Amino acid sequence: MTLHPRIAHPNLSSRMMSAEDAAALIEDGMTVGMSGFTGSGYPKAVPMALAARIEAEHAAGNPFRVKVWTGASTGPELDGALAKADGIELRLPYNSDPIAREKINTGEMNYFDMHLSQVAPMAWQGFLGKLDVAVIEISGITEDGALIPSSSIGNNKTWLDVADKVILELNRWQSDALNGMHDIYYGTALPPNRVPIPLVKPDDRIGQPHFRVDPAKIVAIVETDAPDRNLPFARPDAVAEAIAGHLLEFFAHEVGRGRLPANLLPLQSGVGNVTNAVLSGLMEAPYTGMTAYTEVIQDGMLDLLDAGKLRMASATAFSLSPDAAERFNTEAARFRDKMILRPQEISNHPELVRRLGCIAMNGLIEADIYGNVNSTHVMGSRIQNGIGGSGDFARNAYVSIFMTPSTAKGGKISAIVPMASHVDHIAQDVHVIVTEQGLADLRGLAPKQRAELIIETCAHPDYRPALRDYYARAMASSYGRHAPNVLSEALSWHQRFVETGSMT
Amino acid sequence: MTLHPRIAHPNLSSRMMSAEDAAALIEDGMTVGMSGFTGSGYPKAVPMALAARIEAEHAAGNPFRVKVWTGASTGPELDGALAKADGIELRLPYNSDPIAREKINTGEMNYFDMHLSQVAPMAWQGFLGKLDVAVIEISGITEDGALIPSSSIGNNKTWLDVADKVILELNRWQSDALNGMHDIYYGTALPPNRVPIPLVKPDDRIGQPHFRVDPAKIVAIVETDAPDRNLPFARPDAVAEAIAGHLLEFFAHEVGRGRLPANLLPLQSGVGNVTNAVLSGLMEAPYTGMTAYTEVIQDGMLDLLDAGKLRMASATAFSLSPDAAERFNTEAARFRDKMILRPQEISNHPELVRRLGCIAMNGLIEADIYGNVNSTHVMGSRIQNGIGGSGDFARNAYVSIFMTPSTAKGGKISAIVPMASHVDHIAQDVHVIVTEQGLADLRGLAPKQRAELIIETCAHPDYRPALRDYYARAMASSYGRHAPNVLSEALSWHQRFVETGSMT
Repeated sequence: MTLHPRIAHPNLSSRMMSAEDAAALIEDGMTVGMSGFTGSGYPKAVPMALAARIEAEHAAGNPFRVKVWTGASTGPELDGALAKADGIELRLPYNSDPIAREKINTGEMNYFDMHLSQVAPMAWQGFLGKLDVAVIEISGITEDGALIPSSSIGNNKTWLDVADKVILELNRWQSDALNGMHDIYYGTALPPNRVPIPLVKPDDRIGQPHFRVDPAKIVAIVETDAPDRNLPFARPDAVAEAIAGHLLEFFAHEVGRGRLPANLLPLQSGVGNVTNAVLSGLMEAPYTGMTAYTEVIQDGMLDLLDAGKLRMASATAFSLSPDAAERFNTEAARFRDKMILRPQEISNHPELVRRLGCIAMNGLIEADIYGNVNSTHVMGSRIQNGIGGSGDFARNAYVSIFMTPSTAKGGKISAIVPMASHVDHIAQDVHVIVTEQGLADLRGLAPKQRAELIIETCAHPDYRPALRDYYARAMASSYGRHAPNVLSEALSWHQRFVETGSMT
Repeated sequence: MTLHPRIAHPNLSSRMMSAEDAAALIEDGMTVGMSGFTGSGYPKAVPMALAARIEAEHAAGNPFRVKVWTGASTGPELDGALAKADGIELRLPYNSDPIAREKINTGEMNYFDMHLSQVAPMAWQGFLGKLDVAVIEISGITEDGALIPSSSIGNNKTWLDVADKVILELNRWQSDALNGMHDIYYGTALPPNRVPIPLVKPDDRIGQPHFRVDPAKIVAIVETDAPDRNLPFARPDAVAEAIAGHLLEFFAHEVGRGRLPANLLPLQSGVGNVTNAVLSGLMEAPYTGMTAYTEVIQDGMLDLLDAGKLRMASATAFSLSPDAAERFNTEAARFRDKMILRPQEISNHPELVRRLGCIAMNGLIEADIYGNVNSTHVMGSRIQNGIGGSGDFARNAYVSIFMTPSTAKGGKISAIVPMASHVDHIAQDVHVIVTEQGLADLRGLAPKQRAELIIETCAHPDYRPALRDYYARAMASSYGRHAPNVLSEALSWHQRFVETGSMT
């Protein structure tokens, strides 16, 4: 048998088969651990074949559902296809797929929304049950059977370690040059055997470049040639640019007062329009030698690396536009010395986030006047995506920043509300809130001081009178005046939106 | 001058003065960092003298207020006296004093309620402002001018390092034998200079037994002979015993399934009746060689140490009944090798709590049907005490347990409500809820699975029909069915209590 160009191991080529044959190894009721984080490095063929199989079984009147664990979000070929087939019984730890979201919000699919740093340790801990099959995208296999990771790491190390069987997707689309970029740390353990994680700079390599796996567990290798779910880069609008402007002013202020080093501290940022604007802003800012210790490497970081502004970026995955992905695939050899992809239990580890002192920048759905943040539940009951890594970073960050436009839906929703309809980040974990209106530095402030600052600085002017009115009446009538509230009205803005389509 | 028996340093005795003279060194508008944690090791004379001084200034028509930082709760001679004198402008990071609580809840006093592990690093970070004076209780001074700590460590290391001036209270009531029990770690830093904290077992000593301080900063030494605020031990009632029983059954179950080691994992527990019952229960349980890595050493731990059940206990403070304090003071030499008191940034450090894999046991005010926990705000606006260290432990624990009687105020308040009126611990950080009714293991469950389990297992039977009815109507009418809610009713139980004195 001729060796596959990306399979250096002498025997493993014999496990190659079609996606359909591989999917046939997955049974109803199984728990499947898939690769994938922010739409990169997820398997693209086996989940589609599995979805087709599930649809056929359902058509024949047979039950067929699986539990699906991943790193974080994947792509339409995985979450979309399986959700559409009604094939997911339980999903964890994160979802952003619109079809899966709809199934969750109609109550047809169970979703366990988790801190991303805790997925691997909890899988080891045992209460999530046994992992039957791992389905992992890779970019190659070495001579000794180690696996060369693809464009995300996520929980792959753990899935490969704990699953009974392993199905690999070998994706030729992924750059050969990924080889060597990854740092897989094998030093985690369950207590009482945990030891300090020996990472003190974002640049530190503490592991090995490849995954180990017991070759006897590999039951199938499926070849693919398909791009990640790369979404076009959205150019920042004026609102995003205003938010970025306030934030860059804050950085300058903090550096000026000696409260941040001249090259800042390791940056963590969520994905999206506002983050893109911040990264663009940093291209013009005077900081050099910056680092990122974050979940995801985004378009703007390539520019910052190229310009020498960013010394290096550590993450667990890419999330690039098609243009940037093309650029990375072409020039990976040049970029890869400045990038490290790690398991998400390391990229998001509370120990490391606190040690490094990350500057955390995350989005939100709404914040209340006391600074409690809702990142997940629209109107207190509909899940949007999930908490993801925001809790890992926000609680342990040196500065925890939440960024949002002050309104949504053309002004019909205020991002600043009397009481958050769900809480993901308690006020203690929210140091700064910034909207296009302004930036509120809430550090060290008591609740009423926070309320006044948030209303006057962050809320949209159209909503300020109603917020002031609520707060004034709460001050006059509340059961307690530590954090005054009017219980009968605290959620009335959300109720009005549900009933009329507008909070006003 | 004759040397003081507890001041071995040759010159420092000359700084001895009266509490009144020491208090005269504190000016209006200053920020004062005091010792004290759970009513132990707080200064007892200078705060009283300061309160008298403030009252005199107020009587003369002069303004006089200070900002007060501590470790955690103190005693009536500190928080009570200063709050009564209207002398506190801002209080952080924790309060349990009834007079101060009332001032906070009438809106007369600002209170910044913080994660206890974050106080010291945030004080260093600079945004809390400058610390003018430290007022620290100690039990002695060594020949070279190092300070022998008292019955709590809290943030004393940091206050001594950052304050401009230092006032010491030398308390003869504290046992001489405290000398050598403490472990003051001087290895923390601001990023980018943080390194791993070299502690891998609760027993590890990583620092030194005494505080260092620049002798030039010591402006006063005041001698006292006064006990800590030791409250009588409340014998557990039937409800507390039932809670403890469910919890011990859970431990046995987890050990049996191999999900907890045979000697459990380091125990963390809040203070109070229910904790006492759990500790008593552990006296009868088959575990030996246990450890505690917690904030506070309580009565029950002395028994467990004496019986050899507990190998050792690490904390930042004592919280003992008068009988147990007497016992400890008499037999300190025997106990002290099994106990270590550390700075609260170490006792509560997220890095260490996650590494050690603590079993966290904390109380709550209310939990909602989805598992979100309110530990601090009564009816969404009145502060009870504060979040304390519960967030440091709950988020990073191996198993995060919240314990509560299912009702309060003679049944007029249900601890299980449709929606928490404030959130301190998000559902992701709440693994287990236990009441006298039963124990709900929520790990790995999606919101609706959690709701059914919490209602049927933890809620009081008197409140179950109303909770089921709320949940059923939420399922039928909610905007989203991921975590269904009826916005117009979600806080109606609280509103009813405020209006009628009962949730029913």
